[in-house]
Amino acid sequence: MRTIDWSDGAVSIVDQTVLPGELVVVRIETVSELVDAIKRLAVRGAPALGAAGALGVALAAVLAHGDEEETRREAAILREARPTAVNLGWGVDRALGKLAEGADAVVAEALAILDEDGMTNRAIGRRGAELCTRLGIGGARVLTHCNTGALACVEWGTALGVVRQLQDEGRLRRVLATETRPLLQGARLTAFELAQMGAEYQLIVDSAVASVLTSGLVDVAVVGADRIAVNGDVVNKIGTLQVALAARHAGVPFVVAAPESTIDEATPDGAHVTVEYRDPAEVTSFAGLASAPAGADALNPAFDVTPAELVTAIVTERRVIEGGRAGNGATRTGA
Amino acid sequence: MRTIDWSDGAVSIVDQTVLPGELVVVRIETVSELVDAIKRLAVRGAPALGAAGALGVALAAVLAHGDEEETRREAAILREARPTAVNLGWGVDRALGKLAEGADAVVAEALAILDEDGMTNRAIGRRGAELCTRLGIGGARVLTHCNTGALACVEWGTALGVVRQLQDEGRLRRVLATETRPLLQGARLTAFELAQMGAEYQLIVDSAVASVLTSGLVDVAVVGADRIAVNGDVVNKIGTLQVALAARHAGVPFVVAAPESTIDEATPDGAHVTVEYRDPAEVTSFAGLASAPAGADALNPAFDVTPAELVTAIVTERRVIEGGRAGNGATRTGA
Repeated sequence: MRTIDWSDGAVSIVDQTVLPGELVVVRIETVSELVDAIKRLAVRGAPALGAAGALGVALAAVLAHGDEEETRREAAILREARPTAVNLGWGVDRALGKLAEGADAVVAEALAILDEDGMTNRAIGRRGAELCTRLGIGGARVLTHCNTGALACVEWGTALGVVRQLQDEGRLRRVLATETRPLLQGARLTAFELAQMGAEYQLIVDSAVASVLTSGLVDVAVVGADRIAVNGDVVNKIGTLQVALAARHAGVPFVVAAPESTIDEATPDGAHVTVEYRDPAEVTSFAGLASAPAGADALNPAFDVTPAELVTAIVTERRVIEGGRAGNGATRTGA
Repeated sequence: MRTIDWSDGAVSIVDQTVLPGELVVVRIETVSELVDAIKRLAVRGAPALGAAGALGVALAAVLAHGDEEETRREAAILREARPTAVNLGWGVDRALGKLAEGADAVVAEALAILDEDGMTNRAIGRRGAELCTRLGIGGARVLTHCNTGALACVEWGTALGVVRQLQDEGRLRRVLATETRPLLQGARLTAFELAQMGAEYQLIVDSAVASVLTSGLVDVAVVGADRIAVNGDVVNKIGTLQVALAARHAGVPFVVAAPESTIDEATPDGAHVTVEYRDPAEVTSFAGLASAPAGADALNPAFDVTPAELVTAIVTERRVIEGGRAGNGATRTGA
């Protein structure tokens, strides 16, 4: 099953806010419903947001009966649903590129993106597993952060796609997965996927990352990316930077697994990224229950920026980037 | 009001597991009840555990009508309630030192420890605020981790005692407090104390530490310690190491505030510390609510070890230790 799909003139999504308790598929019939779903993280994860961007434009084009101006207006609203996630805008733009050919062509382009996403992720997984071999890691104990699995994509996964590939090759020894506060994507979604895979795994609180890395329990840390700057700086889920810092301190490779579409030629480096601040209530409550005194204030940055020098390698569907630059003129060591 | 005290032949404690929702004082009449309270973290925090150790021996001595053998047997059980926390054993030993003089002398010694704790913490606070001045920090934006306030001590606090002193001096600009998973001592207890102080503060998820430090939102990070090795390695709440790593990366001073009793002459360095692993269910749930799929496994280290080279200074009631060694022969720069 796909996490996000096109079905009978509407967008269908697996509502990730109710997992792992319930598996609910939501039918989305307007761009405004899709914007809401994106904002409340019912659909999340960089590749899934790319698919959502394209499917949303398809939905707008169908509803507007091919009216380009109306479709572009809806597309602009959709793009702003999560400004830091570059894939959303990328999906919107790819679908808009077919607008002149009519609504059917836009829908076909969105469906092509869904197909490509699966192939892309499998290629990332294979390259990631190859990289582990090259780094001297046979049987792998992998640390990962947030959810970058099938649920974050259309299917398969990016960083968790590398884990799936290692599992397929019989090389996965264990996964340590961060719970990923405030919204617990690791505890809720990654644990769900790892259990379904039959992988051996253990959850840890986010602040145990440095402990498990320095205790020799991890061979490689693999994370996803929401945006990669031209210089190789990585914008990803809050907490990614601490994984990178602790991995460097512990001498453990820190690998970023993400599709080429995550690389943003318009962002020269991490300093140029405006990080989203989300609702403080996400921090002052836990699974819907208040965890702080009434009236407590909180600061809730959604992403952080990991500087390129802390990244061992970025693995995409096309290449392995070592030594920084990911945008035009990047060092290419893969085929 | 004291967090832990002696009252009518019993130990009274503020039950920290129900804060900030309720303020409940529990009367403890046996060592076994005290061991249970320590294990379920109803009483917690290194200095409070020192007081609990002494009061527990006082309780045992009173109940045993001065029988030394019986008191020592109870004391041995008490000491093992939290093996990593050196203050617990320190409090036990100080009280046992008066056992030959009878139960009343043991009670008097325990009460002396409570009095000293308040004075000790105030001295730590003053030295910590002086250190900030010497580091060029006037108005201070402080990052802290876990709860090291009045609730972790008998009164006042260690790292949060430095914050109180800065507040008293009109120099406290803002506190960023980590929520401190899994048991949320920051969200529940530190936020409660900061609100009572009238301090401006914001909670952050633990994994936002590196983000706020590298974003220039913090002038100094101040944490407590559960144990300090002779070489200056600091054993403290899980997540302390990531604070130290991120502070170093960001060029922000990382200060440890703790009483001399935290320094363990029997521990040459952090490599010699056996870290407690606590119940995995603390990670997979919050306040009784599951946050992970049924059957999810977790790894739950309670402490981590921050190497001395990442510590800018250790502030005790007697001195400021810079450059490592905290045990015998330590570098002393304070008076």
